Amino acid sequence: MRFSPLVEQLMDAFRVLPGVGPKTAQRMAMHLLERERPGGQRLAAVIQQAIEEVGYCQRCRTLTEAEVCLLCESPRRDDALLCVVESPADQLAIEEAGGFKGRYFVLHGHLSPLDGIGPESIGLDLLEARVAEGLVEEVVLATNPTIEGEATAHYIASQLAEYGVKLSRLAYGVPMGGELEYVDGGTLSRAFNGRLPFASE
Amino acid sequence: MRFSPLVEQLMDAFRVLPGVGPKTAQRMAMHLLERERPGGQRLAAVIQQAIEEVGYCQRCRTLTEAEVCLLCESPRRDDALLCVVESPADQLAIEEAGGFKGRYFVLHGHLSPLDGIGPESIGLDLLEARVAEGLVEEVVLATNPTIEGEATAHYIASQLAEYGVKLSRLAYGVPMGGELEYVDGGTLSRAFNGRLPFASE
Ligand SMILES: [Zn+2]
Ligand SMILES: [Zn+2]
Repeated sequence: MRFSPLVEQLMDAFRVLPGVGPKTAQRMAMHLLERERPGGQRLAAVIQQAIEEVGYCQRCRTLTEAEVCLLCESPRRDDALLCVVESPADQLAIEEAGGFKGRYFVLHGHLSPLDGIGPESIGLDLLEARVAEGLVEEVVLATNPTIEGEATAHYIASQLAEYGVKLSRLAYGVPMGGELEYVDGGTLSRAFNGRLPFASE
Repeated sequence: MRFSPLVEQLMDAFRVLPGVGPKTAQRMAMHLLERERPGGQRLAAVIQQAIEEVGYCQRCRTLTEAEVCLLCESPRRDDALLCVVESPADQLAIEEAGGFKGRYFVLHGHLSPLDGIGPESIGLDLLEARVAEGLVEEVVLATNPTIEGEATAHYIASQLAEYGVKLSRLAYGVPMGGELEYVDGGTLSRAFNGRLPFASE
């Protein structure tokens, strides 16, 4: 026996979420149908609306439904400091760690020529234009401490070399091969304070 | 900094799911927006449709979008055996354990007079009508091995006493205070085979 087609479809659909296997997906489907129909309806409506309306900030490429995000619009951030991250989740982790008061630029990935992901796919034209404006004095290359993240940081460093901005990289409090998103706030915060000049070769 | 209002709403909305705290909800929202928009749209549509269309089977009260569920309609199940469970998740756990070939009746809860949950709220009128049809020879009271589950089993036993059906309870392979839904299949299967006559007092 399996459940009815629609209940089975609901269980399957939850598996699109990260870390959700068959057993968890079953529990989620049952929970919504048995105890949380209003919350489930709200979840469905918000997912739908967010997928339709949330795009990239025109200035920093973070996720937002506005043309320009709240952080880019804030007058209280330091225009001279620009932190480049691979994902909005990394940006969130750094913000929650506290201590960094500059602006961000979100790549949504890293260079991966074999997958057809080149500089423009990760917004490097927009990043260069931003630095060319002349306000940025230091670019913190906070890509992941993985092979791809390092390669992307090196590429950006050579791309921006002609503008004479200071380039830095997070201090290695973060384990090699790890993902920023899962590093605790204290470690991230220390890594930020201990950031080093970026040596591009 | 927080994300834009709509992204924040999306993160909040995921917290309606069981076992999803703030950090997991953030990861789910980011994952959908960054990597799984088609899957997210499908999830939203299926949640919406399931909440609108899935109700209770008119015969056994399990979750289904049909009037009568597939299991009730199957000619291959034994009408003489009726297993009473608290939830569709318990029914699913027993089915996945295998071995039981009878029919089910789903209470969607247990008696809880202080919360206003009386016999009709958990379908006991429908259960009595089912037994009164005369086909059922044994009712397996597979409510949870909790105080409320035991009390509900006792209530049902006295309600059905006049019909002369055999009453049984799962053998205690399941730990007292536990929830059937989380018991492994082997234990459940053994508990089924070792079921005992129900002693109502
Ligand atoms: Zn922005
Ligand atoms: Zn049914």
